Amino acid sequence: MAKRIEGVLSPVVTPFRADLSPDPDRFARHCKWLMRSGCSGLAVFGTNSEANSMSVEEKLVLLDALVSGGVPASALMPGTGCCALTDSVKLTREAVRMGCGGVLMLPPFYYKGVSDEGLYRNYAEVIERVGDDRLRVYLYHIPPVSQVPITLALIDRLLGKFPGIVAGAKDSSGDWANTKAMLDAFKDRGFDVFAGSEVFLLDNMRAGGKGCITATGNVNPGAIDRVFRNWGSPEADKLQAGITATRKIVQKLPMIPALKAIVAHFANDPQWRSMRPPLTELTQAEESGLITELKASGFSMPGI
Amino acid sequence: MAKRIEGVLSPVVTPFRADLSPDPDRFARHCKWLMRSGCSGLAVFGTNSEANSMSVEEKLVLLDALVSGGVPASALMPGTGCCALTDSVKLTREAVRMGCGGVLMLPPFYYKGVSDEGLYRNYAEVIERVGDDRLRVYLYHIPPVSQVPITLALIDRLLGKFPGIVAGAKDSSGDWANTKAMLDAFKDRGFDVFAGSEVFLLDNMRAGGKGCITATGNVNPGAIDRVFRNWGSPEADKLQAGITATRKIVQKLPMIPALKAIVAHFANDPQWRSMRPPLTELTQAEESGLITELKASGFSMPGI
Repeated sequence: MAKRIEGVLSPVVTPFRADLSPDPDRFARHCKWLMRSGCSGLAVFGTNSEANSMSVEEKLVLLDALVSGGVPASALMPGTGCCALTDSVKLTREAVRMGCGGVLMLPPFYYKGVSDEGLYRNYAEVIERVGDDRLRVYLYHIPPVSQVPITLALIDRLLGKFPGIVAGAKDSSGDWANTKAMLDAFKDRGFDVFAGSEVFLLDNMRAGGKGCITATGNVNPGAIDRVFRNWGSPEADKLQAGITATRKIVQKLPMIPALKAIVAHFANDPQWRSMRPPLTELTQAEESGLITELKASGFSMPGI
Repeated sequence: MAKRIEGVLSPVVTPFRADLSPDPDRFARHCKWLMRSGCSGLAVFGTNSEANSMSVEEKLVLLDALVSGGVPASALMPGTGCCALTDSVKLTREAVRMGCGGVLMLPPFYYKGVSDEGLYRNYAEVIERVGDDRLRVYLYHIPPVSQVPITLALIDRLLGKFPGIVAGAKDSSGDWANTKAMLDAFKDRGFDVFAGSEVFLLDNMRAGGKGCITATGNVNPGAIDRVFRNWGSPEADKLQAGITATRKIVQKLPMIPALKAIVAHFANDPQWRSMRPPLTELTQAEESGLITELKASGFSMPGI
């Protein structure tokens, strides 16, 4: 049985070329920097990856580039939950075939107000069609964006039917009470809970969670990893305060273009600023304000 | 210059087989019944079609089956707006290649709170990449589901840049004031407004609109078409009251499974009840109550 992913995962931002096509080389370079710099895993194709702005085929090309480029598949937790059942099955099947450590599955998010029965059937169909014991499904709860929540009742039913396959969740609700409720209900049933922001990392570890999958992991992986590794130490609260402060600077602006602006600046690679519609890049004024404030706080990206 | 689609369009429900695969034969049969029974056009791959629950490839197979099966492409207005720019381009390009009268384009709907600039870029990229003067884009405004509205300012900008290509909108906001504002602002600029429900059909025609694209068109096309053809006659209000009454019966229940249950019942074809997750079929009690009420009102589906 493969060891499960724990620690700090980055939902990796996706670089686009001038023609808006995804750039596998820049992507692999950033992924390797993240793995050298504190990430235990990479939640490629997350919300912060503009993943839903890419086709299934574009995602498969990027995933293949990572694995064939030497990023360990066991550290990958690609997002594979699409609106279309058949797209979710295709992506998930390929992820398992490539040996990915897990998949992070959004619910189908076009229809709103859908029933737990409908969501259960969606996840069950994907799991049964993939039909592979190596599959590890992490449920992706991000109601502010998807508008389709993953309830505790749904988790309970899925865990009951697919123990070992349904492996955990990322909670991006921003509501610590919900994360805590997930932990209390399921952490002793082989269900690994990742906070959706490093702001909750220390709380999550103290309550039995397994780490965090966080946007800012793209730019601040080392410091966030130090909180993960030292959560039981006397310095934990101080370390947590440091990463929370950095997060608060970044999240004053729209998160995804802000992350790309930071990477572009510190890697001295302007092409990183490119966004696929419907998202747009920061203004120059926004970017220079952000970089100035980050530098004043002592922030850096060593080795990028 | 091809004549533009006007009148009653049905967002055609999609039949699935027992294995949840789309069924091109049943689909073409229903489309042909609709065209015989009052529809001027078919907005296949709409919200009511569970279109976002299908892959791009599944949609292309269905579209090809219709056109090669003898449904006139000029009457088709397939939904081609996806979350991924490249998916929208691919579907739109194929629709134009097949000769479709237009396409109904959702905005990318994963990210919420996106800017008009980002949405403008999305539509402009699709139009420019398809690069075909035959393209007719109808903007799909359905904030209750997509959560991403199409503002009047966005329409104004797109019409200014792509006159003749940007051809109109379907307004499924359920807010007549918004439909009226679209009409007042753009109807004299070659912008054809379709109400998103037949409840607003007469109001829309009187204010300069071109028809409606309505869920209930799947089951009640003849009566709705009579309102379209007779909107200027003295009987118009009475005809409108009749179709509104039928609509109110159907929309007591979740619309999509209700439509499928009605087709299943009147076509005596139980397989029509099948829903793709995350949607679910009606309960037997819901269905029998619905059918009883419809029959009591005099509803029928002649020739199905």
